[in-house]
Formats: sequence, structure tokens, C-alpha cells
Amino acid sequence: MADTRTETDSIGAIEVPANAYWGAQTQRSIENFPFGPTERMPVEIVHALALVKQAAARVNRQHGLDAGLADAIETAAGEVAGGEHDDQFPLVIWQTGSGTQSNMNVNEVIAGRANEILAGTRGGKSPVHPNDHVNMSQSSNDSFPTALHVAAALAVEKRLIPALDRLCGSATRAAIEWQDIVKIGRTHLQDATPLTLGQEFSGYVQQLRDNYQRIRSVEPRLRRLAQGGTAVGTGLNAPSGFAEDIAAAISEVADFSFETAPNKFEALASNDTLVELSGTLNTLAVALTKIANDIRLLGSGPRSGLGELELPANEPGSSIMPGKVNPTQCEMLTMVAAQVIGNHQAVTVGGMQGHLELNVFKPMIGAAVLRSIHLLSVGMESFAERCVEGLVANEGRIAELVERSLMLVTALAPEIGYDNAARIAKTAHEQGLTLREAGLKLGLVDEATFDRLVRPETMIGNR
Amino acid sequence: MADTRTETDSIGAIEVPANAYWGAQTQRSIENFPFGPTERMPVEIVHALALVKQAAARVNRQHGLDAGLADAIETAAGEVAGGEHDDQFPLVIWQTGSGTQSNMNVNEVIAGRANEILAGTRGGKSPVHPNDHVNMSQSSNDSFPTALHVAAALAVEKRLIPALDRLCGSATRAAIEWQDIVKIGRTHLQDATPLTLGQEFSGYVQQLRDNYQRIRSVEPRLRRLAQGGTAVGTGLNAPSGFAEDIAAAISEVADFSFETAPNKFEALASNDTLVELSGTLNTLAVALTKIANDIRLLGSGPRSGLGELELPANEPGSSIMPGKVNPTQCEMLTMVAAQVIGNHQAVTVGGMQGHLELNVFKPMIGAAVLRSIHLLSVGMESFAERCVEGLVANEGRIAELVERSLMLVTALAPEIGYDNAARIAKTAHEQGLTLREAGLKLGLVDEATFDRLVRPETMIGNR
Amino acid sequence: MADTRTETDSIGAIEVPANAYWGAQTQRSIENFPFGPTERMPVEIVHALALVKQAAARVNRQHGLDAGLADAIETAAGEVAGGEHDDQFPLVIWQTGSGTQSNMNVNEVIAGRANEILAGTRGGKSPVHPNDHVNMSQSSNDSFPTALHVAAALAVEKRLIPALDRLCGSATRAAIEWQDIVKIGRTHLQDATPLTLGQEFSGYVQQLRDNYQRIRSVEPRLRRLAQGGTAVGTGLNAPSGFAEDIAAAISEVADFSFETAPNKFEALASNDTLVELSGTLNTLAVALTKIANDIRLLGSGPRSGLGELELPANEPGSSIMPGKVNPTQCEMLTMVAAQVIGNHQAVTVGGMQGHLELNVFKPMIGAAVLRSIHLLSVGMESFAERCVEGLVANEGRIAELVERSLMLVTALAPEIGYDNAARIAKTAHEQGLTLREAGLKLGLVDEATFDRLVRPETMIGNR
Amino acid sequence: MADTRTETDSIGAIEVPANAYWGAQTQRSIENFPFGPTERMPVEIVHALALVKQAAARVNRQHGLDAGLADAIETAAGEVAGGEHDDQFPLVIWQTGSGTQSNMNVNEVIAGRANEILAGTRGGKSPVHPNDHVNMSQSSNDSFPTALHVAAALAVEKRLIPALDRLCGSATRAAIEWQDIVKIGRTHLQDATPLTLGQEFSGYVQQLRDNYQRIRSVEPRLRRLAQGGTAVGTGLNAPSGFAEDIAAAISEVADFSFETAPNKFEALASNDTLVELSGTLNTLAVALTKIANDIRLLGSGPRSGLGELELPANEPGSSIMPGKVNPTQCEMLTMVAAQVIGNHQAVTVGGMQGHLELNVFKPMIGAAVLRSIHLLSVGMESFAERCVEGLVANEGRIAELVERSLMLVTALAPEIGYDNAARIAKTAHEQGLTLREAGLKLGLVDEATFDRLVRPETMIGNR
Repeated sequence: MADTRTETDSIGAIEVPANAYWGAQTQRSIENFPFGPTERMPVEIVHALALVKQAAARVNRQHGLDAGLADAIETAAGEVAGGEHDDQFPLVIWQTGSGTQSNMNVNEVIAGRANEILAGTRGGKSPVHPNDHVNMSQSSNDSFPTALHVAAALAVEKRLIPALDRLCGSATRAAIEWQDIVKIGRTHLQDATPLTLGQEFSGYVQQLRDNYQRIRSVEPRLRRLAQGGTAVGTGLNAPSGFAEDIAAAISEVADFSFETAPNKFEALASNDTLVELSGTLNTLAVALTKIANDIRLLGSGPRSGLGELELPANEPGSSIMPGKVNPTQCEMLTMVAAQVIGNHQAVTVGGMQGHLELNVFKPMIGAAVLRSIHLLSVGMESFAERCVEGLVANEGRIAELVERSLMLVTALAPEIGYDNAARIAKTAHEQGLTLREAGLKLGLVDEATFDRLVRPETMIGNR
Repeated sequence: MADTRTETDSIGAIEVPANAYWGAQTQRSIENFPFGPTERMPVEIVHALALVKQAAARVNRQHGLDAGLADAIETAAGEVAGGEHDDQFPLVIWQTGSGTQSNMNVNEVIAGRANEILAGTRGGKSPVHPNDHVNMSQSSNDSFPTALHVAAALAVEKRLIPALDRLCGSATRAAIEWQDIVKIGRTHLQDATPLTLGQEFSGYVQQLRDNYQRIRSVEPRLRRLAQGGTAVGTGLNAPSGFAEDIAAAISEVADFSFETAPNKFEALASNDTLVELSGTLNTLAVALTKIANDIRLLGSGPRSGLGELELPANEPGSSIMPGKVNPTQCEMLTMVAAQVIGNHQAVTVGGMQGHLELNVFKPMIGAAVLRSIHLLSVGMESFAERCVEGLVANEGRIAELVERSLMLVTALAPEIGYDNAARIAKTAHEQGLTLREAGLKLGLVDEATFDRLVRPETMIGNR
Repeated sequence: MADTRTETDSIGAIEVPANAYWGAQTQRSIENFPFGPTERMPVEIVHALALVKQAAARVNRQHGLDAGLADAIETAAGEVAGGEHDDQFPLVIWQTGSGTQSNMNVNEVIAGRANEILAGTRGGKSPVHPNDHVNMSQSSNDSFPTALHVAAALAVEKRLIPALDRLCGSATRAAIEWQDIVKIGRTHLQDATPLTLGQEFSGYVQQLRDNYQRIRSVEPRLRRLAQGGTAVGTGLNAPSGFAEDIAAAISEVADFSFETAPNKFEALASNDTLVELSGTLNTLAVALTKIANDIRLLGSGPRSGLGELELPANEPGSSIMPGKVNPTQCEMLTMVAAQVIGNHQAVTVGGMQGHLELNVFKPMIGAAVLRSIHLLSVGMESFAERCVEGLVANEGRIAELVERSLMLVTALAPEIGYDNAARIAKTAHEQGLTLREAGLKLGLVDEATFDRLVRPETMIGNR
Repeated sequence: MADTRTETDSIGAIEVPANAYWGAQTQRSIENFPFGPTERMPVEIVHALALVKQAAARVNRQHGLDAGLADAIETAAGEVAGGEHDDQFPLVIWQTGSGTQSNMNVNEVIAGRANEILAGTRGGKSPVHPNDHVNMSQSSNDSFPTALHVAAALAVEKRLIPALDRLCGSATRAAIEWQDIVKIGRTHLQDATPLTLGQEFSGYVQQLRDNYQRIRSVEPRLRRLAQGGTAVGTGLNAPSGFAEDIAAAISEVADFSFETAPNKFEALASNDTLVELSGTLNTLAVALTKIANDIRLLGSGPRSGLGELELPANEPGSSIMPGKVNPTQCEMLTMVAAQVIGNHQAVTVGGMQGHLELNVFKPMIGAAVLRSIHLLSVGMESFAERCVEGLVANEGRIAELVERSLMLVTALAPEIGYDNAARIAKTAHEQGLTLREAGLKLGLVDEATFDRLVRPETMIGNR
């Protein structure tokens, strides 16, 4: 049959689809880990591995790699990094824990494509050999964790930070727009002293800004690359200076600044920095849950809830209740947050199980972190655009609620004492009175004092 | 100085407080793991170990243990199990992962007390030796997991189940009492079609009943004891039939039915059943969070929240806002639930890390499971007594909210179609009309049809 | 342009691809939740929703649904359930938390296909209307959780249980085959008393059997369906008896026995049973981690590890170290387990956040549980086939290790006492002697006694 | 009876033990949350609250608080902060979610003690009132989160960092001492190319150093205090400038630099920074698990394990196997790590559930974080002292293992190609040959080349 060709590795020969660029080791992995297309290794990791190969060829030509081969490798790697061959990476997350098979998939496809460029025949090991040339001076043990740092750093920079910025901007505009809308505060979900709606949103802005700082604080470690450690961290089979040179070359091809890890043993044996990054995603998920939850609480109703905010009606809300509009963006975002929190647990469990010179939970850790970044990025962007930016303050309702609150009594406490103020609030609540009525009835405050002190607009501090 | 005496073990001699019953190994552990009194091994585990020792003496006398020694061991063990010597167990959770040191603490204290009974001198190894007599036919590797199953099974039976029963009873009484109070339903925190307050609480009752079944479903495995496996599961140094005999003897002294584990290798090397039990506590924590959260939502106010329930005022609510009453039992219970969910993670992480013939995360796993049971037991009991049983339905507020709801329109859909019903709801919402007004204005329904169909009391199903 | 058509919902009109079966609400959701194809709602949930629709049509024709429409709905639903239209379900997990949009996607595609069957034109709302006919007597709030139970129950029965069975069978055969191979035991990763390799594997068998029981124990609750509760659990707009009838009809079309949930308020507002199921998957993941970890430890080497087992060489192990063979199936399985543990956390976090009449984390919970089942099913099947069934016991190495162990001294303790036995072991260790040499040198045992007691083959208990 | 006195609060009168300093609200909390002494609020939080009260009195005297009262409050608060009244704080973690009752416990005890100083009578509200004077210008809602940041920051600085420093120092000394001991590397738990034992430990040093940076990176946010926000963040009832002044005063009394939070709404409504801190503790726990696990793997044996390290024998290892020595400090540390990972989950679950102006999971979050810090601090200190500092390299065993390794073949690959090197390794493994023998037999390498390239001491890189 014409539709396969034979490829070989140290185990032996194996048939590969004739039109595939990959070789024996990729084919073996397809058969050994039959999880199917929904479980593919994230394409960001494949692209990052290709950047590593491109950079390696650039450095290796200075250490004896034939220029013609190096050119072909760089070209092929550039195509892969640019997404031109995404269908050539059928391997799944659940494979060797070092990512060896995905590393070899990239090595084989680049070699296969380079051979096509140089010799007109797709695949094979000559003139470009996947191990001896594409993987030259490298091991999966340093290439794969390098690719994870590259993929994660780029995803943070190009997707997570912009999405966080947008959401932060949306919340900031709301905080400014609503800075004079005085509303009832709620602590323990119980009525409390007033604040402005803008102040409430300023808290969200601060949460988002702090999370920006948290994510940025990981960067010094995320920019460090394992490459150059080769098999166990000693750099065996890589020339002197390779680690520093390839960090520079990767920075060049990725257009983002990386540096070589100060200790390669740590860089292979631990994935602590990805656990740390996942921890900041976890904190961000915690903050987003709080914010989205508040917005759906404030938007509850329309007639039997708090009703202080109106959320945009993006779609019909119910298949049975006509006219219902639901806080679907809040629901999406809190579900995303729950999965990110779960992924953090998976990453933690994987991160703690390294053994001696290598942690072999790398594909799971990398895939979970990248999925969390993807979910948070799209989730925040969509939440900003389709929820926060469309919020409307229901000013009538807000004013109605603040006026009838009992907690305005707090303003009396410094003047008449906590215990007397408590008696007024209790009497008003039990007898269905206003605070003013209860205070005068109990003789604990006079009219002038009450009217001077109990004014919501003076109870909201210096803004 | 007179206030210490010398004790020895295979490492050498060591000074022990003169009035302590314990010996060298306990003393060494005190010094090697200086975590302090807040981190003590839970006393339930100590008591359960003492039950094991009491039962062992009862069986061992049939296999050559001198009757006088056996009697003294049984007496001393009974005292420990009964809580008479709780101050003699200073060791902490964070020790050898097999619990060897707590097992030796119990062996030493029982020997030390038995020697006092027999010879008048506290402590020592003669005539009763902690290893050769108290620990006879046992290893820490089987005694400690046995004690964990005994302690957990008793805590479930005597504390968790009664507390769950009480809470379930309280919720059931509320469901019955409020079966005719029609209220607005809320889905997505948005107004939905009506139900009764009793129906809402019947959902909680079902959650609690299902959790009862979940806990009960663990019991067949929780009743299985590792004892008899000795060091690695083979039962080396225990006489034939020991495993079955001691399971019977433990059932006798604990007054609860246990049986010998069908496979001792599993019983030492894994703690899967404790992970499973922790999983059911996790599910219970999930259910309790939902219930407590609902109650604080329904009780939010008093004037700016949903206000459908009034919660008992058990204490002043705020140090600054006079007259504030907070849902403190709900807050206690949801905090408890969060810690139980966290403990489940700790137990999972410990449970997965067994190596070959032994899992060495046993003290952490046992302590976390017992703490979770304690927290849930006290938490549910208190929540039932101080919150659920004191709830008052605010019937006026409930009626007001249901009457103005737009979601009653759902009852029209089968007759006028979903799309027309949606138009009525939308119009009412936008123009501030009642549904009736909107329906008639749009000409989509006549008065008689509307009044026949849109009646909350007919929209709550067959109860 | 000819390649779209206009569809409408209560929000208004929207363009839909002309060749799509779906309608306005699906199209809106595609645009509102742009997470892309890697985040699609699992197809198992789509198929289960189609089974619900098929069953609903069957019941609804007894309650007034026109037989021609019912036939067309049944036909179209059967096609969807059978996987014929998988490309018509582009919606992602991250949408409305009730799964409304996926429910509507299924309603719209079935209506669109039924309309094609009946009228020759794809899509639209006539003669078959997605809400009034396909969704008749249903709400997303009961259909979607019903579909989650159906999909999970089928996945457990048809995929998880068979994979667990296979792995259990493989381990059982190993336990039997190796029942006479005496080897050194290890506790605390330190040498301990001997057992057989078969006994060691019998522990794994017991773990797997217990996990089978754990999974089975969830079934009574997993078989319960929310359908019939409609919007809030009262069953508004569904005819009397609908809940029971549709449970029977679903059992028929799914060929698996389901029953109606005893309380529909619980069935909508909580997903406790999916949290419980996830808890059993978590326990299974814990057990699999232990087993896979043991096997890679026992297979460590080939020359500098424990070396007791040889694992099958399924692929080349290293891109830089020629000839290396790695425990890749163990690595795959422990990574799978870590993700399942993480998913359990996500499910727990989602499960605890239900509000009043509805939990709105349903798509995340359902997708996470189904992914965990998929990962565990493929993982166990592959691990059985490509690792356990190919294991070879390295009998020479095993014998060598057991012979030189110091822990055989334990067999002397009952006769010469614990303290004397400890001295022999310590002396042997410090002076590099055999136990026999040390015992004789110290004069603590005579030759005959030593040779009678210290025989590994008598130290492995009654098997 | 003489042994109680009557105290009152806004709920009414209640009997308090006559010798207690506390008042009505403390007493009520004892009765409402009966979790018992094992669940007490951590004393570090009590001490930190007392520092807040001391600082508040110092600031309040500038805003009208009578100097005599202020002096007495400062004195009493100083005593509490210094640990003189620890028995006066019987309240448990599981209380109001704002920590109001512990705040009031501190207010009441300080007032009670100040009244004793001023008037000779213990307890009461005069002349010093717990709310009006001790709690002046404060709310629980700002005092309690302030105390959590103060307590956590001090525990990190005074306990966690020094313990981490010590462990890092111990590992560094080992890395230096063993920098020339060449040993076999292991990846995937399989033999790999060599490295030195010092290099292996240098990886641990890097992990610890990175974790030091992670913890430090939280500090800018941990030093920010909520105080001054009062009830909802607006600062109602606190004088202008109070927030800045009290941050300065707290810095003074705590002898550690704090600053006022830039946004008080965030500081009350979220505990994101404690979630972040917990995330760094989680990452540290991951690193410690890896390190402790490696050490017990390398120390496995003594005769049937890897045996490269000897661990100090701190105690007898087994109650049944004489002479056994176990890696108990490793077991302690990995159990500690598992609990810290679990606590992180609890903190995450609590952190995400804030509602509007207040997160009411504060006591649980604070207690869990402080317990994690305590466990890690004692754990690392003990592990350094009793394990790492006593490790002995078993040089004979290490040399034996490296010499027989097959992975030295990697050094041949750059010269003879990956595929040929793989053939040599495979042949050596299958036929039980040395690499040299296999290489020569296959004719793939000559003697001189082999001896030049395959030298472990040249395969360990530039150190």
C-alpha cells in the first residue's frame, strides 16, 4: 500500500502515514496512549518547542552543525512555531512524564519537513536526523521544561495580562462613574453603614491591581530556562556556553526576554515556578469569584432581589420561563474560576512528586497551567465586555434601600454611646419605626442632633 | 535530682520525668518533634490504641501471655481507654508516619501503669515489657491503622450520625411547618416560578438524608481492621487465628462490631478507606455550605435584603454598628465546611503517597479525618440548635415578594406559547407594569384566562 | 448572501449559517462565550440530552403532543444520540451555569432536523418548535442535570467499570503467578520482613476491588433523575406523572435503569451526587497512584535501582540517553490521577456554591466528572495492557535482596526478646556481618535456633 | 454564689466567672460555639489584636480619649500582647466570620484589666468601656484583618524565614562538602548520566532560595493594614488621618514596618493577600516534599535499597522489627507538607466566598495560615537539625553504582551517533555485559575512544 511508509527507532520499524512528517517515536506514542483528540498536548507547548529548536539550530551552527542543515531546521521550526503544521502533532498530554514524546514529535516533524526541503522527500532521518541534528545539544529533560516556561510566559504576557488590564479598566471606569451614588453597605449579608457604589467597585479594582502585581512577581523566575542542563542538569553533550547562548537565541526568536536558569538541577527536577504561577492564577480565581458573585447578588431580581444593578441581557435566560435574563457571564466566570482552582490542585499534586533528577509530571503541569491561563484570559475579556461594561446602576432602587436602613444609627454611637445607639436600632426594628422615630421616642437623641449626624452622604468618608 | 528516672531503648538511656508513666521512646519523640501542645495526637486515637491493647491482652493470654501480666495490661489499658491518663500522651501528630511513637507511647504508659499495679513502681519494662507483652503479636504497622479505623468508626457512630440526625430532624420540622407558605423561587439568583418554603427546606432534608446514606456506605470497609498483619501484612510473629480473634475482642471492648480485613497488605499499605470516608465528609461539607448559605441569603436584611427568614439573635453582631444581628451560626458552619474540604485535600495527598508495604502518612490522615468529624459534629448540632430551630418565616415579606413576581408568566406559556409569554414579561419589566396589565395591554391574554392560570398557589405542584 | 439564514429568539433576530441545524440561541452563545473548539461541551452530555428529548417526545405524545411531530422529534433525537450530528454542537462548557444554552442547542438542532424531515427545510421553529415541542414539559433546570446523571452513569458502566475490571484481572493474574516468589518487604522505604511478590500484588487487587465497591455504592443515587421538576422543582407545566413516565422512557432509550428522583428541589439545587461520584474517582486516583508508583519503584534500575521488576519497553526512553527505557505507563497513570484529584477539587468548589433553587456550576461539574472518567478509563485499560500484563519478575535479583536482609531478625524476637534481637541487627549493620554471624558472635542465639527460625519462606504467613 | 459576676451587653445580662477578665460577649460566644479547647483561636492572633488595641489607645489619646484611660488600656494591652493573660482567651476559631467575638474578647479583657488597674475591680465597662474606649475608632471588620496581617507578617519574619534559612544553610553545606562525589543520576527513577552528590543538593538549595524569594514577594501586600476602614471601608467614626496614624503606631508597638492599605474596601471584603501567602506556603510544601522524598529514597536500605545516604538514627524504628531505623524526619516533613497543601485549599475556599463589603471566613483563614506557618517552621528547623545536618554519604556504595551504569553510554552519542550508542546499551543490558565489552564486541567503538569518552568524572559539567 502506498499510504504508509516505514520509519525506525531503537525499538525497531513501524509504519507511519505516508503524508505525515512525523517518525517512529511519534507513531508509537499514538498507539501507546489512546486518549483521543480531546486530550491533545496544547498547541502552545508545541509552538514553544519549535522556538527552542529554531534557537538551537542557530546556536548549534556555531558549534559544528552544518549550515545547510541548520538553515533547513530553522525554516522548518519557524513554520511549526508559526502554526503551519498544527495537524502534525497528534500526541496527547498523557504520555511520558518528561514530555519526551512531544519533544520527539517536534524533532521528527522538523526533521521530516527539513528533509523535504533539502531532499524532496517527507520524513526520515537523513540528511536531517531528529536526534543528532534537531535535538543536538539538547535532551527532552531540558527542552520540555524550557518550552513550558516559554509557552507560559508568552501566554501570560500576550493573553492574561491584556485581559486583566481590560477588566481592570472596565471596573475602574465604573468606580469613577458611580463615585457619588450612595448605597447601603452590607456585611455578613446584613445591612451595614453606607458607602458609594463607586467605592464598592474601587475594591474590585484594587483586587485586580494586586493580582496584576502577583502575576508580575513570578516573572523573574518564569523567564529562567532549563535549556543547557541536558539529561540530568550537568549539561553533558552540550558545548560550553550553550545554556547562555540558547537563552539569548530563544529571546530573539520569541521576541521576549529569557535568561538561563542559575541552577539546572532545580530546573529539571522541580517545577516549583509553575506551581507558583498556578498559585497566582488560583488567587486571581478567588478574586474573580468574589467580584462576579457580588455582581450577580447586586443584580438579583428583577423584583424579588437586591436589584441595585441591571446586567446586560445577552441571551434569553430560560427555556421554560419566558422573559428571564440571567447573569450568564458571572456564571461562566465563576465556573472558570472553579476549574482554575481545581487545576491548581492538580499542578500542586504533580509538582510535589518529583523524584531525584527529574519531575515526570511535566505534560500535565504544563497543560493545566496553560488551560487555566486560556480560561482566565477569555473569561475576563468576555466578562469585561459583556457584563461589566454593560452594567447599569438602578439609582432609584439604591436610594430607596439606603434611606430605610437601620445601620445609619452607627453615626450616633460616638455621641450617645454604643449601648444607647443599639437600643434605638433594636426598638426601630421591633416596632417597625424609622431610626428617627425610635430615637426620639426613647428620648436618647434630640431632633437636631439626629438630623445633623444621620446623613448617609456624610458617612462615606474621604474619597 | 529526684524528679527524673532513667529509661532505656535500643538507642540507649534517657531521662524521663519521675512521675510519668511513659518510657524512653516517648521521651525521645517529645524531644525530636518539638511542635508543642497545640499539635497533640488526637485523644480519640490514643483511646482507640488502648482498646487495641486491651483486646490484645485478652487474646494473647490464650497464646501464652502470663495471666497476671494480661490482667494488669487489661486494667491499665482500660484506664487509658476510659480517659484516666490523657495527660500521659504528649506526643504530636507530626512524628513517624506509621504512628510508631504513639503506639509506643501507649505501650509504655500501659506497661508503666501495669508495672505500678503489679510491682508498685511506675514505669520500666518489668514485669510488663512494652514491646514483648503490651505489643505482643502486634506491630505499629497494624495497630495504628486499626486504631484509626476504630476511632473513626466510633466518632462517626457516636458523634457525626447523631448530629446529622438532629439537623435533619430540625430541617424536616421546618419543611412540614412551612409546607403551605408560597414564596418566590429563585434560579440564577433571579426571580423564578413559585414554590413553598416547606418545599425549599425539603430539598435540604433530602441532601442531608443522602449524605447519611453516603456515610453509611463507607461502614462495611471502615469496620475492617488491619490488626493481625503485623509488620508487612504477613502476620509474622502473630499466632494463627490472631487476626480474627482480635477483631472479635476489639468489637467486645469497643462495643461496636468490627471484622478482620480480608487482605492485610492493603490494610497497611493503603489508607484508601479513610480517603473514602474523608470524601463523604467533603460531600457533606458541600451540602452544608449550600444550606447555610441559602439561610443567610434568605435571612439577609433586615431592610435591604431578601428578608424572608429571621434568624435567632444569639449575640450582638457588631463591635461598631449597634443593633446589628449576624448569621453567625451560618458563618461558623461554612468555615467548618471549608476546613473539612481542605482536610480532605490533605488526606488525599497523604493517601496517594504510600510506598510498597506501608503508607507513612497515617498520623496526619487520622488526625485530619477525626478533626473533620469533630468540626462537623459540633457544627451541625450547634447549627440545628442555635439557627435552624429558631428560624422564623417572615410571612408578610414572603407574600409581598411572590405577588409582584414576573415569573408567574411561565404558567401562561403552555396556553399562549413561550414567545408570547416572553413578550408579556418583557413589557411588564420595561414599563413597570404587572403581568396582568401587560398581558391585557398587548392583547395576548384575556382576563379570565389570566386569572385562571396565574395563581401562585396552583403553581407549586403535587406535594 | 446565501450562506446564512435568519433565526429569532426573544432577544431578536440573528444570522445563522445556512447549513446549520441550530437556531438563534445557539448562535448567540457561540458569540457570547468565545473559548474556542478545545473547550467544547463533552459530546457525552449532548448525546444524553438527546436521549432525554427522545424520551420526552415518547411521553409527551400521551399528553397531547401531535404524533407526527413526536415521531419526527424521536427520529431526530435518535440521530443526535447516535452521534450523527456531533458537528452541530459547537457550544463550550463555559456558558450559562444551568446548561440552558446546550439544552437549547439540542432543542434547536432536533427541531431543525425534525423540520427538515417534515417540511424539507433545515432549521426554524415550525412545524416543530424547539421550546414548545422539543422542550415540552421540560426546563433546562431539570433536563441538564438529568443528562449529567445519564451521561455519567453510562460512562461509569460502559467505560470505567470495564477498565477497572481489566486492571483488576491483570493484577490478580500477577498475584497468583507470583505467589511463591519470596521477596524483601519494605516499610518506610526501609528493609522489613519478607513477603511474596504475589502478596504484594494481592494488596493492589484488594485496593481495586474496594474501589469497585465504592463506585458501585454511588449508583443508587446516580440513577435518580431530576426530570419532571421543571423550572424550580415543583414540576410546573409538566403533566401529572410526567416525572415517573420519563424516567421509564429514558431507561428504555438508554437501555439502562433509571428512576425519578424522590425530591426534585434537591435534584436541581444541589449536585451532591456528582460531588460524591467525583469523590470515588478521587479515591480511585489515590489507589492508582500508589500502585503505579510501587511498580516504577520496583522497576527502578536497571543497574542502580531496586530492579525487582522489569517493565515492558514500549518506546525509546530518552532523546539523549540511548537505550534508556522508562516507566511511561506509570507516568501517564499518575499524571491522570493528579488531574482527577484536581478535577475533584473543581467539582467540590462548584458543588458547594448552589444558590437557592439552582446550582449554576452544572456544565463545569459535568464536564470535569466526564473527563475524569475518560482519563481513568483509558488510563487503566492502557496501564493494564501495556504495563501490568507485560511485567517480568526478576527472580535472581529478588532472591539476592531477601537473602542479605537484616530484618529477618524479627523472627528471633519472640524467642530471644525484642532488645536482644535489636542488638544482633545493629551489630550486623555496623560491622557488615550477616545476622547469623552477629547472633553467634554476640552469643545471643545458637546455630540450630537461628537456622530453625530465620527462614524467609516461613515468614510469609498463611496465604 | 460568689464565683460569678453579672455582665451585660445589648442582648441582656449573663453570668461570667468571677475571676475572668472577660465580659458578656465573650461568655456568650463560649456557650454558642462549643468546640472545646483543641479548637482555640491561635494565640498569635490574640496577641496581634492586643497590639492593635495598644496602638489604637496611643492614637486615640490624640483624638480625645482620656489620658488616664488610654494609659490603662496601653498597659493592659501590653500585658495581653506579651502573653500574660493567655488563659483569658477561651474562644474558638469557629465563631462569627468577621472575628467579632475574638475582637470583643480582647476588648473586654483589656477593659476588664484596665478597670482593675484603675478601679481595683476586675471586669465591667467602667471607667473603661470595651466598645467606646478600647475599640474606639475601630470595628471588628478592620481590627481583625489587621491582626491577621500583623500576626502572619511577624510569624513569617520571626519563625518561617529563620527556619528556611537554617535548612537552606544545612543543604548548602552538604552541597559544598559533597561537590566531588560523583554518583549515578536517575531520571524517571531509571539510571541516567552521572552528576555529583553536591550538584544534587545544589538543586535543593536553589528550590529553597527560590521559595525564600516567593515568600518575600508577598510582603509588600502583607504589610498593608485594613485598620481605619471601620465597618465597611469608609472609615466612619474614625477621625481623619486615623488609618495612617495607627499603621505607624502598630509598626512601633510591633517593631515591624507596616503601612495603611491603599483601599480599605478591598482590605475588608477580600483576604486575597492571605490566599496569596498561603499559595507560597503551598509552593514551599511542594519543594519540601520533593527534598524529603529524595532523601528517604537515597537513604533507602540499608541492604535492599539505594543506600547512597545514611540518615541519623534518632529513635528506634519499629515496635516489632528490632534494629530498624526509619526516615522519621522525612515522614514528619512530608506529612506537614500535606497538611499545608490541605490548608491552602481551605484558605482558597474561604477566600473566594466573600460577600459584598466583608469576607466572613476570616478566623478560619487566619488560623489555617498561622498553623501552616507553625508547622513549616518547626518542621524545617527540625528536619535541618535532625536529618540534613546528620546525613552521611555512603561513598563506597555510590561509587559502586556509578561504575556499573549503562547510561554512561550517552557520552559516546555525539561521536558515534545516537542509534549506535543505543545498540551498545541494549546489548550490554541484554547480555549482562559492561558497556566497554558491548561496544567492542559490536565493533562500534574502539578501546581508546571508549576510554577517552566514558569517564564519569568528565560527565558532570562545569561546576
